[in-house]
Amino acid sequence: MGKVVTFGEVLMCLASPGSVRLKQSKSLDIDFGGAEANVAVSLAQFGEDVSFVTRVPKNDMAELALMSLKSFGVNTHNVQWGGDRLGLYYFENGAVYRGSKVIYDRDHSAMATIEPHTVNWDEVFKDADWFHWTGITPALSASAFNVTKEALKAAKERGITISGDYNFRKNLWNWGVEAEEVMPELMNYCDIMSGIHPDVDVVKEKVSDALYAEAGQQMMDKYPNCKLVVFTSRGSVSASHNTWAGALYDGERVYRSITYNLTHIVDRVGGGDSFMAALIYALRNYETKQEAVDFATAASTL
Amino acid sequence: MGKVVTFGEVLMCLASPGSVRLKQSKSLDIDFGGAEANVAVSLAQFGEDVSFVTRVPKNDMAELALMSLKSFGVNTHNVQWGGDRLGLYYFENGAVYRGSKVIYDRDHSAMATIEPHTVNWDEVFKDADWFHWTGITPALSASAFNVTKEALKAAKERGITISGDYNFRKNLWNWGVEAEEVMPELMNYCDIMSGIHPDVDVVKEKVSDALYAEAGQQMMDKYPNCKLVVFTSRGSVSASHNTWAGALYDGERVYRSITYNLTHIVDRVGGGDSFMAALIYALRNYETKQEAVDFATAASTL
Amino acid sequence: MGKVVTFGEVLMCLASPGSVRLKQSKSLDIDFGGAEANVAVSLAQFGEDVSFVTRVPKNDMAELALMSLKSFGVNTHNVQWGGDRLGLYYFENGAVYRGSKVIYDRDHSAMATIEPHTVNWDEVFKDADWFHWTGITPALSASAFNVTKEALKAAKERGITISGDYNFRKNLWNWGVEAEEVMPELMNYCDIMSGIHPDVDVVKEKVSDALYAEAGQQMMDKYPNCKLVVFTSRGSVSASHNTWAGALYDGERVYRSITYNLTHIVDRVGGGDSFMAALIYALRNYETKQEAVDFATAASTL
Amino acid sequence: MGKVVTFGEVLMCLASPGSVRLKQSKSLDIDFGGAEANVAVSLAQFGEDVSFVTRVPKNDMAELALMSLKSFGVNTHNVQWGGDRLGLYYFENGAVYRGSKVIYDRDHSAMATIEPHTVNWDEVFKDADWFHWTGITPALSASAFNVTKEALKAAKERGITISGDYNFRKNLWNWGVEAEEVMPELMNYCDIMSGIHPDVDVVKEKVSDALYAEAGQQMMDKYPNCKLVVFTSRGSVSASHNTWAGALYDGERVYRSITYNLTHIVDRVGGGDSFMAALIYALRNYETKQEAVDFATAASTL
Amino acid sequence: MGKVVTFGEVLMCLASPGSVRLKQSKSLDIDFGGAEANVAVSLAQFGEDVSFVTRVPKNDMAELALMSLKSFGVNTHNVQWGGDRLGLYYFENGAVYRGSKVIYDRDHSAMATIEPHTVNWDEVFKDADWFHWTGITPALSASAFNVTKEALKAAKERGITISGDYNFRKNLWNWGVEAEEVMPELMNYCDIMSGIHPDVDVVKEKVSDALYAEAGQQMMDKYPNCKLVVFTSRGSVSASHNTWAGALYDGERVYRSITYNLTHIVDRVGGGDSFMAALIYALRNYETKQEAVDFATAASTL
Amino acid sequence: MGKVVTFGEVLMCLASPGSVRLKQSKSLDIDFGGAEANVAVSLAQFGEDVSFVTRVPKNDMAELALMSLKSFGVNTHNVQWGGDRLGLYYFENGAVYRGSKVIYDRDHSAMATIEPHTVNWDEVFKDADWFHWTGITPALSASAFNVTKEALKAAKERGITISGDYNFRKNLWNWGVEAEEVMPELMNYCDIMSGIHPDVDVVKEKVSDALYAEAGQQMMDKYPNCKLVVFTSRGSVSASHNTWAGALYDGERVYRSITYNLTHIVDRVGGGDSFMAALIYALRNYETKQEAVDFATAASTL
Ligand SMILES: Nc1ncnc2c1ncn2[C@@H]1O[C@H](COP(=O)(O)OP(=O)(O)O)[C@@H](O)[C@H]1O
Ligand SMILES: Nc1ncnc2c1ncn2[C@@H]1O[C@H](COP(=O)(O)OP(=O)(O)O)[C@@H](O)[C@H]1O
Ligand SMILES: Nc1ncnc2c1ncn2[C@@H]1O[C@H](COP(=O)(O)OP(=O)(O)O)[C@@H](O)[C@H]1O
Ligand SMILES: Nc1ncnc2c1ncn2[C@@H]1O[C@H](COP(=O)(O)OP(=O)(O)O)[C@@H](O)[C@H]1O
Ligand SMILES: Nc1ncnc2c1ncn2[C@@H]1O[C@H](COP(=O)(O)OP(=O)(O)O)[C@@H](O)[C@H]1O
Ligand SMILES: Nc1ncnc2c1ncn2[C@@H]1O[C@H](COP(=O)(O)OP(=O)(O)O)[C@@H](O)[C@H]1O
Repeated sequence: MGKVVTFGEVLMCLASPGSVRLKQSKSLDIDFGGAEANVAVSLAQFGEDVSFVTRVPKNDMAELALMSLKSFGVNTHNVQWGGDRLGLYYFENGAVYRGSKVIYDRDHSAMATIEPHTVNWDEVFKDADWFHWTGITPALSASAFNVTKEALKAAKERGITISGDYNFRKNLWNWGVEAEEVMPELMNYCDIMSGIHPDVDVVKEKVSDALYAEAGQQMMDKYPNCKLVVFTSRGSVSASHNTWAGALYDGERVYRSITYNLTHIVDRVGGGDSFMAALIYALRNYETKQEAVDFATAASTL
Repeated sequence: MGKVVTFGEVLMCLASPGSVRLKQSKSLDIDFGGAEANVAVSLAQFGEDVSFVTRVPKNDMAELALMSLKSFGVNTHNVQWGGDRLGLYYFENGAVYRGSKVIYDRDHSAMATIEPHTVNWDEVFKDADWFHWTGITPALSASAFNVTKEALKAAKERGITISGDYNFRKNLWNWGVEAEEVMPELMNYCDIMSGIHPDVDVVKEKVSDALYAEAGQQMMDKYPNCKLVVFTSRGSVSASHNTWAGALYDGERVYRSITYNLTHIVDRVGGGDSFMAALIYALRNYETKQEAVDFATAASTL
Repeated sequence: MGKVVTFGEVLMCLASPGSVRLKQSKSLDIDFGGAEANVAVSLAQFGEDVSFVTRVPKNDMAELALMSLKSFGVNTHNVQWGGDRLGLYYFENGAVYRGSKVIYDRDHSAMATIEPHTVNWDEVFKDADWFHWTGITPALSASAFNVTKEALKAAKERGITISGDYNFRKNLWNWGVEAEEVMPELMNYCDIMSGIHPDVDVVKEKVSDALYAEAGQQMMDKYPNCKLVVFTSRGSVSASHNTWAGALYDGERVYRSITYNLTHIVDRVGGGDSFMAALIYALRNYETKQEAVDFATAASTL
Repeated sequence: MGKVVTFGEVLMCLASPGSVRLKQSKSLDIDFGGAEANVAVSLAQFGEDVSFVTRVPKNDMAELALMSLKSFGVNTHNVQWGGDRLGLYYFENGAVYRGSKVIYDRDHSAMATIEPHTVNWDEVFKDADWFHWTGITPALSASAFNVTKEALKAAKERGITISGDYNFRKNLWNWGVEAEEVMPELMNYCDIMSGIHPDVDVVKEKVSDALYAEAGQQMMDKYPNCKLVVFTSRGSVSASHNTWAGALYDGERVYRSITYNLTHIVDRVGGGDSFMAALIYALRNYETKQEAVDFATAASTL
Repeated sequence: MGKVVTFGEVLMCLASPGSVRLKQSKSLDIDFGGAEANVAVSLAQFGEDVSFVTRVPKNDMAELALMSLKSFGVNTHNVQWGGDRLGLYYFENGAVYRGSKVIYDRDHSAMATIEPHTVNWDEVFKDADWFHWTGITPALSASAFNVTKEALKAAKERGITISGDYNFRKNLWNWGVEAEEVMPELMNYCDIMSGIHPDVDVVKEKVSDALYAEAGQQMMDKYPNCKLVVFTSRGSVSASHNTWAGALYDGERVYRSITYNLTHIVDRVGGGDSFMAALIYALRNYETKQEAVDFATAASTL
Repeated sequence: MGKVVTFGEVLMCLASPGSVRLKQSKSLDIDFGGAEANVAVSLAQFGEDVSFVTRVPKNDMAELALMSLKSFGVNTHNVQWGGDRLGLYYFENGAVYRGSKVIYDRDHSAMATIEPHTVNWDEVFKDADWFHWTGITPALSASAFNVTKEALKAAKERGITISGDYNFRKNLWNWGVEAEEVMPELMNYCDIMSGIHPDVDVVKEKVSDALYAEAGQQMMDKYPNCKLVVFTSRGSVSASHNTWAGALYDGERVYRSITYNLTHIVDRVGGGDSFMAALIYALRNYETKQEAVDFATAASTL
């Protein structure tokens, strides 16, 4: 089996310790996130050979980021050094009646200022048979959008399986276009797609199989290359009680996991990422789609 | 006596704890710096009524910055809310054969993007009789330069005493002009100036009175409004041993402090700032220039 | 609108970290409390101009206390320096079957030994239009009682609105009198009063409007200056589950908030304080009493 | 060999971590001190059977104090429970040009309010053959003075060897008498005495044997029961460089240790205490006075 | 009343802080455990005179272990110094869907290599009237088994009451025999026994009195010296919700406690130990068996 | 250029924080060491492709060890999983008159119990052109000795350059033979050798070129395969002041570095390791032996 490549931004997460508020914090714990980096880490922990492609500035904080990725076994040989700063976000854990809080500070990051034609895709995709990306990367800037397109084209040309997570966040898109205008061109490269497109309306919870099939089919009609549509469904029972379930539609039928009850949720950031990672792993290593959706849902509750 | 106004950027300092390297750190201690903010804090601690003017984004990290300033008694009523991010720097303490390390990440900060004609100088300078600024602020961006000029003009019109610290740092000036081209216009507003201009050559240590007088006179010839030239002189005996001394030239004679030996220096960042703060305080509260230079030098060794 | 003045003791809180027991703790986190200081901080955070009057010894711990108050924007210019020690309490968070624990060590504090005729009430009440106090202060000592009376008289003479929180704690009163003997004289200065008097019997939970009206009217009959009686009602469903609601009686009718369910309560100390602060703020800034009680109850659940 | 008894106050030490200033500290590390408790701990660590007698309030902080003493093997069975508070002090480590800082908060402590005739000296001195005390205890209050006298009388009656450390600190004596008026009565019980009486003038450093002999003889003339006079001599070369030496005079000759150079002193509090503990141990377990002074000086440099 | 002796291994517990995983931890908090040491600590805290007998290597970590025991008042005079290492375990707190985790590293410990005929039982059992042991100690090694037998024989000869906890853990027994082969010989020394023998089948929850009586009687038939059989019953309602109850059978009737609901369980390790300690204390100090079982169950929920 | 292989034990280092003593520590910081692992990490940081071969148990602590190695870029694919425990040592930083302290607890570790014929040397040495080992590994146990011999034979057969560090520590050798009996057989495989054999007497400091040449020649006579003898020389001026220098002898002449003064040494463990790593790197990447010894010495002072 070949290696998996993911492409995106690695963000430094500066979190106030325990349940202290950012506004009362005296120190910040360092961690690293970013949807595609999270997926790479999870895949490496499942034992996959995975390479993460990004751009980081030549400084200690970026080295710390790469050391963290490497410690989990992610290959960082194709990371590009350059740019001025590492994108970051401040994080505060929620409690009782107040939710978690995230303050992003990642504009002008090294990844947002990546230049087209600077990545050697031959080297990146050598021995690769899977490419994963999300809609967060093209949202960063026009040039990040262009480099994402380069990546998708290069992957497609090499016959590599492509999975993409729409991951729509309205306020991320501020480089002058609407997501709806430009994302379809990128989504159309995907063999597997997650994060339902905003045009396609699915009530998130208590969805019948028929509804999933209908929504999935709409996607397939719109994106003819797509062979599998992925759904995750989170229901907020209370601030500290969620339900969690996954589903797949392959053009023929719907495969659903059981619904998990998550109480005392410590941290819901990244749930979608670990689901995608587990799904990619399972699609590559299990026999059936039912096994895949079961594994992915279970793995993302841990 | 009226109040003192300082104007500049407040930076969040994220420091690895103790003597841990940034590259091996798991958490970062939060502190706040910036030359003009440091001066404001020191002055407030000496008991002066001091107002700090800056621009910060509307988020928790900026609130933390202002809470820190307020906790020392600095008035922040004239701070402007706006912009996208709080400038920051990462800091690592030195040890044995390696020095301290600073990684700046403050481009595109709220202060760098401050807009001309947005500050109400009438309100800022109400009851003020002293204004302090440094060459770091005009270095940030063209608009920061312009707002600094606004501030100087407004202060001059109101007959306020102006002290300025040239504080030349070549790599700070990257908005398209050389410091030498534009700083003279600003320096000319100063009654008191520190941080010798790069054109004026002074060997930092073992300087004779005559040399200080010559250098000071050159400044006064160039900047006819200047009534007092301030010198600080740090000699690095070793990584953990410095000497420290101050001097003033008032057009007539040179006033010098004794030379201090600083061993086991924990943190040399900000020495110049605490000297300036102590000098401003002393010029306002002591009788003679000799007392002023003695107090300023002694206070900045603590 | 004028400023608010609160008067009382600021206490240093030394808390064992997380859920560690005091008896097993190796370090103590520093925080600051005290009912009137808490009210001042909350009011400052709502944007009110608020001055806190107290007495603290001339040492570093007291400076830390004032720095904390100042960081939240509380004016401490009228704090009196003197006395020997800062009152303090040790605090341990509860868990499962054991509750929180507080060990007071505040006898002989600077505030308890404040002397009559040492506070300049002209300066304290300059530009003030609201004064808040609680029954904790007169409980400290005979002299603290006398200075509280001074404050109330001075406020009344200047036509300032007075709110008081009876805040009865039997074991606090140990300077030789019973609360019941001396408090009525002080309560009689209040325009608004909270913390029902022990003589007035109200079953705390599941109270009908009629009962509140009756209890409120009893207070008004006893204290003819009183224009508003404030009730808060906490019901302990379990160690980690409380209900919380507020009510007002203005001589004509009862205004009630909805009842909140608080699960996973981290820290119930100070709930009454933040209610009072929010109520004062709301009475000053909202149109109706209904809005005031709604805001105060909601704000004190956060 | 019998057990050693020490009698005095155990103080909670609340220290800012590392070299952080108290005024900037967010937490305080808990430790325990007090001259006589320190001596007890050191003796227990040398393997002596030692009982510490004091009075502490019935609360968690006092239990923590006793747990600390017990962890080092000190017997606390004769500690008296009672009083309102545990005496404490805040501690800040020094650095470069600023020294260490201690803020005492121990007035009205349980030990200061100990009552005469409440200690069962029969039980305390059962199996004891040595009693150690210092001049700090009688300085606390009139009643502490009286109980110290009780202890000395009881020890003398039982033929127990008594060692005392004058430990003069002028500002400790504030219960209405001068140390000089009342200490001689107590000192006269001592077989061994340290901490030269203020009347007896000894230049601390570079002292000749003759001078020590003269000073020692003066003491012996004044206190006829005294059989051994103990001298420690600390010379401050710089803030981080001290010399340290000890000497004994037994009425016949002077025994001196070598002089140690202590660089990078972390913490000089307690040096005198660990000297006394080591001396008591050595006098009980070594053959000669020369060995004793050598051991005590060496042990107190570690 | 005489003293209680317990005999077993003290283990260093190295726990990741808070709810951090071991695999992501940067530091480990030090604590100490071991069933018999836990029982000793609890008994000492109830005020019993208790001596703990074990074997530890001559190093700082073992001294730390003994200091911890001593701080709670446990007598460690009969601890034997020797062997190469202190047994330890790594501990991780559980959260949501994942349980707590323990990694043992205690093979070849000082206690496992204790030699027969090296303990002075005369000294150990001087003034003792109670001996407590558990099945964990004989599981460690053949020599630990033999020394346990020595201890039991010595206690029996001196007429000391013996309580034992079967504490069966299959994977602990790896020195070449099955527990069932050798434990009966040891259990037969017990007057009081807990931790039902694997042969005796008792459904843990919802047990009727009759069933307890039957199981207890089976034990008594098998071990004729036994006068009291102890049962504890934990029911796992969910990962964070347990029920907890205790029962005794004395050959005549069953005494049962009420059933406690334990929610938000922080740490269930050691529940059985604190039950046994409280039971021993209660059997020695209360009048009736009903009081004993009530006290033991209640005390072990705190 | 090919990859470098190192073979040995990775040890978990559990260090008391800052300058706290182990005997007073409440937590331990986790780090990882071991001479060969240190060399691998340093080489990876210089940019070499390096694979570390060892044996670790299948548990979280071992995973943490490998994550640490991977974070620095060391390849751990050839690590063998097995055995019962990860070797560890406790570490305490020294201060003033007391030195650093190390307590080893690594007997019976996974590495000490590695079995002959279980490593696939073909895979290990694929693409390798350098092998580094030290005398610490064969000291662990007879089987570790045998596997080291296997490794050396396999490397020699493949024409790989071999560097070895004698690293003699008498108390490490306790599996039944003396180092002198068995080490020569292993040393004889080396092309480059460091850590002078105990038979060869070299006064460590102030050594003339002639002496180095003589000692080097003695080694070469004894071990005919050796082409380069490496010397490091540390002189202890005081507890916090060392000198440090390196030298090479290649059979023809001596190459010496300058002598460095190291003051305020924080941590001298591993100095020899970082010298060897830097030397291997320099011999592979620089032109001359003089450059190599200069680089190695300079790099190991940082
Ligand atoms: N600029 C960015 N680049 C990459 N990932 C990002 C970025 N901003 C936020 N994220 C990631 O978005 C993810 C949150 O989304 P997700 O896991 O799908 O949860 P949810 O289902 O709640 O949306 C996190 O992994 C976070 O790290
Ligand atoms: N963008 C900035 N705005 C304000 N101050 C800054 C900025 N960047 C660096 N500084 C300040 O520069 C100061 C360092 O200069 P100074 O105290 O004069 O020491 P030195 O004499 O070593 O130059 C610090 O106060 C630091 O906070
Ligand atoms: N001496 C004191 N001076 C001021 N406030 C005190 C004093 N002692 C206790 N307090 C305060 O009492 C308050 C607790 O009361 P409150 O908030 O009304 O809660 P509750 O409703 O549970 O009584 C806290 O704010 C605490 O800081
Ligand atoms: N109230 C007190 N009771 C007991 N000891 C005290 C008290 N106040 C201060 N100390 C002790 O005084 C000692 C400091 O004196 P010492 O060790 O003799 O050093 P020095 O030689 O510098 O005077 C410390 O042990 C400190 O704990
Ligand atoms: N080698 C050992 N020696 C002594 N005690 C041990 C050993 N290994 C585990 N333990 C102890 O086992 C106990 C856990 O058992 P217990 O308290 O009976 O709880 P449970 O009822 O869940 O089994 C803990 O006290 C732990 O410290
Ligand atoms: N069992 C072991 N396996 C590998 N390395 C070890 C072992 N025991 C100690 N060490 C290592 O020995 C080294 C110390 O030696 P070195 O760096 O040569 O310094 P020095 O010159 O002072 O001897 C450290 O790297 C330490 O990690």
